[in-house]
Amino acid sequence: MTVEIDISKNMSPEPELMCIFGTGDLGRSLGLRLLQCGYRVVYGSRTPHSCGPLPQGAQVMTHEESARSAKLIFICVHREHYEFLEKMAPQLERKVLVDLSNNLKKDMYMEANAVYLQRLVPKAAVVKGLNTLSAWALQNGLLAGRQVYLCGNNEEAKRDVAEMATKLGLTVVDKGSLSAAKEVEDFPLQLFPEWRMPLYVAVGLSAFFFLYLLIRDIIYAYVENDEDISYRIMISLANKVSPIMSLIMLALCYLPGAIAGFLQLYRGTKYRRFPNWLDRWMLCRKQMGLLALGFAFLHVIYTLLIPVRYPNRHKVISSVVNEMKNNNTTPFYFDNTKAWGADSLFALGILGFFLFVLLGLTSLPSVGGTLSWREFSFVQSTLGHLTLFLCTAHCYIYAWNKFLRTSTYKWYTPPGSMLCLIVPSVTLVLKLILVLPCVNRPLMRIRQGWERNRPKDEMGELKATNM
Amino acid sequence: MTVEIDISKNMSPEPELMCIFGTGDLGRSLGLRLLQCGYRVVYGSRTPHSCGPLPQGAQVMTHEESARSAKLIFICVHREHYEFLEKMAPQLERKVLVDLSNNLKKDMYMEANAVYLQRLVPKAAVVKGLNTLSAWALQNGLLAGRQVYLCGNNEEAKRDVAEMATKLGLTVVDKGSLSAAKEVEDFPLQLFPEWRMPLYVAVGLSAFFFLYLLIRDIIYAYVENDEDISYRIMISLANKVSPIMSLIMLALCYLPGAIAGFLQLYRGTKYRRFPNWLDRWMLCRKQMGLLALGFAFLHVIYTLLIPVRYPNRHKVISSVVNEMKNNNTTPFYFDNTKAWGADSLFALGILGFFLFVLLGLTSLPSVGGTLSWREFSFVQSTLGHLTLFLCTAHCYIYAWNKFLRTSTYKWYTPPGSMLCLIVPSVTLVLKLILVLPCVNRPLMRIRQGWERNRPKDEMGELKATNM
Amino acid sequence: MTVEIDISKNMSPEPELMCIFGTGDLGRSLGLRLLQCGYRVVYGSRTPHSCGPLPQGAQVMTHEESARSAKLIFICVHREHYEFLEKMAPQLERKVLVDLSNNLKKDMYMEANAVYLQRLVPKAAVVKGLNTLSAWALQNGLLAGRQVYLCGNNEEAKRDVAEMATKLGLTVVDKGSLSAAKEVEDFPLQLFPEWRMPLYVAVGLSAFFFLYLLIRDIIYAYVENDEDISYRIMISLANKVSPIMSLIMLALCYLPGAIAGFLQLYRGTKYRRFPNWLDRWMLCRKQMGLLALGFAFLHVIYTLLIPVRYPNRHKVISSVVNEMKNNNTTPFYFDNTKAWGADSLFALGILGFFLFVLLGLTSLPSVGGTLSWREFSFVQSTLGHLTLFLCTAHCYIYAWNKFLRTSTYKWYTPPGSMLCLIVPSVTLVLKLILVLPCVNRPLMRIRQGWERNRPKDEMGELKATNM
Repeated sequence: MTVEIDISKNMSPEPELMCIFGTGDLGRSLGLRLLQCGYRVVYGSRTPHSCGPLPQGAQVMTHEESARSAKLIFICVHREHYEFLEKMAPQLERKVLVDLSNNLKKDMYMEANAVYLQRLVPKAAVVKGLNTLSAWALQNGLLAGRQVYLCGNNEEAKRDVAEMATKLGLTVVDKGSLSAAKEVEDFPLQLFPEWRMPLYVAVGLSAFFFLYLLIRDIIYAYVENDEDISYRIMISLANKVSPIMSLIMLALCYLPGAIAGFLQLYRGTKYRRFPNWLDRWMLCRKQMGLLALGFAFLHVIYTLLIPVRYPNRHKVISSVVNEMKNNNTTPFYFDNTKAWGADSLFALGILGFFLFVLLGLTSLPSVGGTLSWREFSFVQSTLGHLTLFLCTAHCYIYAWNKFLRTSTYKWYTPPGSMLCLIVPSVTLVLKLILVLPCVNRPLMRIRQGWERNRPKDEMGELKATNM
Repeated sequence: MTVEIDISKNMSPEPELMCIFGTGDLGRSLGLRLLQCGYRVVYGSRTPHSCGPLPQGAQVMTHEESARSAKLIFICVHREHYEFLEKMAPQLERKVLVDLSNNLKKDMYMEANAVYLQRLVPKAAVVKGLNTLSAWALQNGLLAGRQVYLCGNNEEAKRDVAEMATKLGLTVVDKGSLSAAKEVEDFPLQLFPEWRMPLYVAVGLSAFFFLYLLIRDIIYAYVENDEDISYRIMISLANKVSPIMSLIMLALCYLPGAIAGFLQLYRGTKYRRFPNWLDRWMLCRKQMGLLALGFAFLHVIYTLLIPVRYPNRHKVISSVVNEMKNNNTTPFYFDNTKAWGADSLFALGILGFFLFVLLGLTSLPSVGGTLSWREFSFVQSTLGHLTLFLCTAHCYIYAWNKFLRTSTYKWYTPPGSMLCLIVPSVTLVLKLILVLPCVNRPLMRIRQGWERNRPKDEMGELKATNM
Repeated sequence: MTVEIDISKNMSPEPELMCIFGTGDLGRSLGLRLLQCGYRVVYGSRTPHSCGPLPQGAQVMTHEESARSAKLIFICVHREHYEFLEKMAPQLERKVLVDLSNNLKKDMYMEANAVYLQRLVPKAAVVKGLNTLSAWALQNGLLAGRQVYLCGNNEEAKRDVAEMATKLGLTVVDKGSLSAAKEVEDFPLQLFPEWRMPLYVAVGLSAFFFLYLLIRDIIYAYVENDEDISYRIMISLANKVSPIMSLIMLALCYLPGAIAGFLQLYRGTKYRRFPNWLDRWMLCRKQMGLLALGFAFLHVIYTLLIPVRYPNRHKVISSVVNEMKNNNTTPFYFDNTKAWGADSLFALGILGFFLFVLLGLTSLPSVGGTLSWREFSFVQSTLGHLTLFLCTAHCYIYAWNKFLRTSTYKWYTPPGSMLCLIVPSVTLVLKLILVLPCVNRPLMRIRQGWERNRPKDEMGELKATNM
């Protein structure tokens, strides 16, 4: 059998017509994109004859005319100008109005824009959505696979919009009825909501350690020895705060997992929700880890800069000169133990940082997305704990010969490098306990759905296959 | 009601048959992919019995037979061999021919391959497209969300191809009629077109500063002091050029935005197009920023390497020895101001570089794609200007004590570190003016669509919702 | 003509109903996602009244009831609990059962889970697939463009599942009949299979060079000079092994391409398969390159750390002191040649590392995906070989003045820096030969499909358009 297409009549069945109200940047970009995806486009404008350059192939009409010809109408207009839609309510009856509007600030209006629109035109089916797309992304076709949110009271209208969005290459998430419009409108105004808690923790802890070390190092030297070493604030102090913060943040990133494990063991089930604080903590582990990586990066650069700095050069030169003038006999005995200690310190630090960078790379969406589940868990759990172990060992070596010297405890306070060892040590010990076979076995069974307090005959009940 | 499928007859309605001409790498990979997506595939070959390994499940026939059985025919054949298609024009009548061919160079032929094909087989519907896909990407299924371009004169044919491409997971962009075929064929031959201008600027400026510093530093020392310090070309000079270039490129990346703001203020509208040069400049800001980051990276490594280098070691040692021999009394007075200055210089540099790396990371497609509009603008505008400010301050501190010394102005020329401060200073001052409330308010109104010269009664006219 | 939707009756035609057996994490996440994509969802549970929190909008019934109402049934249950499905075989007749199960280890069971399921319920159409999705990815909507594998004996059933998966934003790859189920079930258990060979090579070579240098440096010094320099193991030795490994791995990444070129030239065709070892080698070039980058990164940090280290500080200070005590007259003659040599070494190293990082960045999926075919080949081939050339030159400069000194050949062994030059030198020479016009021209023709041993009249035969 021969399959053919009819090329004699060049007029194939016409593609669907979409109407756009508003000829601004967003309206124009959206129209261009719709045309590229094979739709026909008509613009509605109050001044159809003087509305600036529009995409090639699009028509322009008055609002009334354009509304009549299409089923879907995109409202690319500021909320402040919605009133005119009320006047043309008859033409909009039974149409699908897609509200793409955004506000400049959160809570500018009591009522969501889409709810307001639905109130103005009660007989149309308002669908809120696509408002996370910028004119820029539309124009440059950067839509593939992007998630957009839809909500609306009419299921059929929502399905029509979803179908159109899918043709544009978008992934649609249905947020339910129009009561979710406020939430959908707040999406483009979010400013790193999942980073807020980790940032607060980081800033708070940094401030504490900065002040603590300022008092212990600079003010102590000034008060007790009458020395002015305030220049150390810029780099030496920063290079003490950043490794401390890095280690603590990294430990804070693995601590909730260990706590969750113990909680599950104690409860004997994985089906009870974690307390709220633990849930929120678990959700910002990635951000904590990335902040820790940032601090580690700063620590590495600060450390590598040490020999370039003026105070360091001064110290080296003056130590030589002093040595020469005092004319010691064995001034430069090479201490093998010291060499081993110093080099181990650096070696552990470098390996830890190397693994840390690897962890950071796999948290890139495009890298992490290519990993299988087992690979992801290997990297984030096994490699992650190894990194924490190496960095903690790095810090222990740095602090080890200070523990027993009394001169370390200026004004009876322990040095920062000791303080910062508490959280990672606890985390590692907890993890170690969880990894012991006798503890790990019941935990694994719980994580596969087994429950301690279930009656025996229900044990056959079905559980999730994964995780 | 019970919903069931009929598994008694295993012969469900047959999926569509696709025909591929050409059994090379591309033909085979395409066939494999089509089979994986549920199509049936038949190959057309002149020697159906000896055409090498084909994907499992595909048939092979002569060209004529295979063409008869399918509606879509993929032409995976070099343009040089198209003539045979002319001979089989009758069999190709009313078929959709998808031309996937590429050329080795731009402008190898006057006529686009697809136009030539259409001329050979006028009664078929030629669609140009999918030619940006490589055999390798097809074979490894790396298609999800990728953009492909289509063009052709027959709308129905184009829609058939687009539908097939969508099933393969591709995002289709319709480029219009077959007259766009040339443009579509040039896509895979592009070599970083958007990087060209920034690279020219970078190379030109680098060459200028390199020569300028070569004359001022090395040739001046040779002529005036009879010193041979030519070894400095390799690293010292490079470490002067790279920070200069980094700072200037970063400023050039934010300058056009400021100019555009002033232009919009002056014109009182955002609806007039920018002059061509400004448009092109704005479009390559990302590339400029990344080049600046590259230079900053080089500067950091060069700087960190300083103490490892032989000349530096030599300088340190000989300065000690000289000091000792001259037996000065206060040779190593520790200059607190100098320590503060040097450490501030480094601290600012490190923070600037840190933010710079953050900016670079968010320009990765997979990272930037996850940001909301407000997050993106916060990172690229707020953090970006902060980075520029920190780096400019870093440079001011480096240059500050050289401004008033006459020895700085060798041969009456200012040092490079002064020259490079001009552009960033101007950029920062312009940005500062734009941020002043009295200037920012009208600008924001203009960017929301307000126009100064519009008659009052048209002010209610609808504007874009976004940007 | 006016197009309208009917909003008077709010009951639009109902979307399809999906049934999920199992109310664990995966079941719940899958249900949530299906609901978001517009499906209705019913859960099957043995205890419909006490099965924990389910997504809003989903129903719960007994297994029998829920199975009756839907066509597709997702089995989110551990394989160990499959027996109950046998009992309800009558209700499952003619249903599509999607088996999403995974095992904890490879080869836990002789028979694939899906094959076992099909055996239990022979009259249902079992489709294996979607098992690479985690509950976490489903819940967070991270599906866009992700590849999933399907296999099954019933084509219609497979098509239904594929359609559903496409609506969820997934890219479906059909793996054929149910005999592929074992392979599909092993996907989530893979642990970096493509990294295995490169890692073995890296570990093996590293161990060899570590031992070789341990003997040559540390044991030699101990035996011959009675010196204990064991502290060098931590950093000095590591900093010798890492650049050696980096250079060799980089060369190993480009060597197979050169060998393949010569093989094609020798055979006169590109249509014969490469030997197996070469094929496997070619497939892990990217991983080899990334490992080489990792070693280069370590080498850079190790090198930058040198001046911070205690042994280095000790060496500098004691060299000054010795110099002063011996009271040499021209102790610190500045050797211009040495300065040039040392600085060239560093300059080449920095440039090589810079290009290396660029190569690494373009191998990120999200960056590489935006490159055109020509851009990708420019970066990976031209820039790649340039990087190899720079790094090899860096190593030649480091080794050049050691070639002719006999003291270099401790115990008659060449230093590591000479050994590691062999592979890159060979690679570069081979590449150089391939680039010569007289060799390159026939190779290019072969790569476009020309064959030497083909009879003349078949030369018109069609070849692939690409690569």
